[in-house]
Amino acid sequence: MQTEIINIGDELLIGQVINTNASWMSEQLNLAGFPVHRVTIIPDDPQHILDALKESGRRSELVLLTGGLGPTKDDLTKDVLCKYFRTKLIFDPVTFQTIEKFFKTRGFPVTAVNRRQAEIPENCVAIPNANGTAPGMWFEEETAGAEKKHVFVSMPGVPFEMKAMLIHEVIPRLKQYFQPVIVLHHTLLTQGLGESFLSDILEDWEANLPANLHLAYLPQPGIVRLRLTGQSDDEASLQKQMDIEASKLKSLLQDYIFGEGDATLEAVVGKLLKETGSTLATAESCTGGYIAHMITSIPGSSAYYKGSIIAYSNDIKMKELGVSEKALGEYGAVSEEVVKQMANNVRSRLDCDYSIAVSGIAGPDGGTKDKPVGLVWIAIAGPSGIQTNKYLFGDNRERNIRRAALQALNLLRKKILGQL
Amino acid sequence: MQTEIINIGDELLIGQVINTNASWMSEQLNLAGFPVHRVTIIPDDPQHILDALKESGRRSELVLLTGGLGPTKDDLTKDVLCKYFRTKLIFDPVTFQTIEKFFKTRGFPVTAVNRRQAEIPENCVAIPNANGTAPGMWFEEETAGAEKKHVFVSMPGVPFEMKAMLIHEVIPRLKQYFQPVIVLHHTLLTQGLGESFLSDILEDWEANLPANLHLAYLPQPGIVRLRLTGQSDDEASLQKQMDIEASKLKSLLQDYIFGEGDATLEAVVGKLLKETGSTLATAESCTGGYIAHMITSIPGSSAYYKGSIIAYSNDIKMKELGVSEKALGEYGAVSEEVVKQMANNVRSRLDCDYSIAVSGIAGPDGGTKDKPVGLVWIAIAGPSGIQTNKYLFGDNRERNIRRAALQALNLLRKKILGQL
Repeated sequence: MQTEIINIGDELLIGQVINTNASWMSEQLNLAGFPVHRVTIIPDDPQHILDALKESGRRSELVLLTGGLGPTKDDLTKDVLCKYFRTKLIFDPVTFQTIEKFFKTRGFPVTAVNRRQAEIPENCVAIPNANGTAPGMWFEEETAGAEKKHVFVSMPGVPFEMKAMLIHEVIPRLKQYFQPVIVLHHTLLTQGLGESFLSDILEDWEANLPANLHLAYLPQPGIVRLRLTGQSDDEASLQKQMDIEASKLKSLLQDYIFGEGDATLEAVVGKLLKETGSTLATAESCTGGYIAHMITSIPGSSAYYKGSIIAYSNDIKMKELGVSEKALGEYGAVSEEVVKQMANNVRSRLDCDYSIAVSGIAGPDGGTKDKPVGLVWIAIAGPSGIQTNKYLFGDNRERNIRRAALQALNLLRKKILGQL
Repeated sequence: MQTEIINIGDELLIGQVINTNASWMSEQLNLAGFPVHRVTIIPDDPQHILDALKESGRRSELVLLTGGLGPTKDDLTKDVLCKYFRTKLIFDPVTFQTIEKFFKTRGFPVTAVNRRQAEIPENCVAIPNANGTAPGMWFEEETAGAEKKHVFVSMPGVPFEMKAMLIHEVIPRLKQYFQPVIVLHHTLLTQGLGESFLSDILEDWEANLPANLHLAYLPQPGIVRLRLTGQSDDEASLQKQMDIEASKLKSLLQDYIFGEGDATLEAVVGKLLKETGSTLATAESCTGGYIAHMITSIPGSSAYYKGSIIAYSNDIKMKELGVSEKALGEYGAVSEEVVKQMANNVRSRLDCDYSIAVSGIAGPDGGTKDKPVGLVWIAIAGPSGIQTNKYLFGDNRERNIRRAALQALNLLRKKILGQL
């Protein structure tokens, strides 16, 4: 079975908007058992849309379209779909009720232009849009000799409208219609080890995985997501297999796994602080506020985060963080002794349960032979004492800042859990 | 003339990698006078690649391919190009010299696999790759009745290799071969006004623009880029037209323009601080370290940035920033009086020339009728005194943090320039 995606929109062809819809849709469809074989971007032009429909209809059993469903004159998809299927637009009262409700909630009247949104090609089934006014549309086309009809699904191009529609409406219908093989996924999030080191640890386990299961390494700077995927005709036994292998994976990588699914380290740490009724302060040098920013990006973080002293210069380290002139002179700003003083002092000055301190050389300049770019010291202080760790990251400033921040948050997570 | 892009790679079809190449290439090609009419993503599969070549060759005068040029068995593009053009691979000594040099610089020997990178289809011209071992390839194909031959260009998929090759090698050759109309661009960066407010100010000016010039609004959260584009056959007179209109634009929007081209506000402010030999401190509440992070993302920022006190809780505002209990009690943390004290006190405590202070309600919770989510007070202090401003942004936490930080940096820029 072949699946393809057609994204319609001039904005995607002039570089104004990156086509994130295609990669997101590909991932979701792939995870649901519908691997994508082609993505096509075309302009808001009726001939280009018609050509793309004809070509994809010849090639693929399933075609998903996005874009061109708005109420303005640029939005041509519905008209071209009518032409392709040799049908006409009709007024759909059920869709109109949804549109009326949508505007009523927001206190606006339904204009003539918005009323047009309730017009859909006669041969389609409308798919509800929970977040907007343009309905999705499901078309089936007879194909000589094929067991199932071809399916075309047209969806809005606005990402949050399309995403909710694909997940809650379209994929369930596709599963029911095409009955693809059952695919299950379990994603574990790791911090602190690169892809090749993780695969060394997992080598034996991977070699002994059942043939219907496999592991994908999905690296981002500082984080590697591990996605275990299984395929089977029997969901219950597959779920059992998945649970067994996921728990093996967890015990092999227990020092590095910080969460599952879509979690972030800053949210995981925030939840732990909230649950334990603890407070946090930070003292940052080379990360320059990035740790504070990550923590405060979580809504409600004021419940556990009191603040930070960002000491980019040595005199601020002394004056605001009480780091001794002796330590700075003897060991330098990037040293175990200095991060220790930073962590202990910010914890007591800001009167918090936990503290993080980071000092390092983010680069690209400022490195020496003894202290190269990428060298970072991290200290974590808490009721049970203080721990320090030394890291040597790479030569990219942005990535060094991000890796140091993630590492510090993961150390704090372990500290709160009593694993440090 | 029709132009299209074909991106080859399984990783683009499973959601692992977002196809940023396509939007970047579209933008560059569009800016160079080659608007893109179609983008196609296909898997590392010889039949899919061959089909896509045939289809695009029928449709378009110019086809740019990326991907599948590496030395491994997944990399099939060269073989399929040979099949399409009915030719064979030959060893190219010039390309091999480049590859040898590439490895020699890095202290590695050239393996047999790498030697294969110097094999190219007999009918193409090799395009040098400044950042890698896989050469680009330029193909011309006879087309019945066409004035020019069709052109196919194959490039590596690795973004930094492809980008340098497209800009420095491919676009100059395309311009010479196709001689498209001359297109010039001038991008001005604005902060502080939304798209619709900018277009109100520019309405008359836009209505009177020469017919060969037009303005594009490219909004990002907190920033709108304005790109003036002109087309002509005569570069000198076009440049003159562009200069005249760009200077009109600058005088109409002088309060909002902070830079040109690819500049960022944090780099512009950093440069001003460096040039004037000034130092900066920040005191952040709702932005939670994001301003400090932006400033310290610039290499060499330690020359002018001393640090920040992030006072997320009121007791830190009092203890570390010397904000009076009276001001907090009478006016609340989000008030003119409190940001004034924050800015003045952080400036004197950290002994800097300039300071920024921000306090607001980032949301999504914590708003009241008098102080809704999105309310932000900003103070800028410097040798010439202190200014405060009040803003009401939206209801999205992430965007509120970003908009407040950008606004604060732009106020600082004006302050240093004596425009505040």
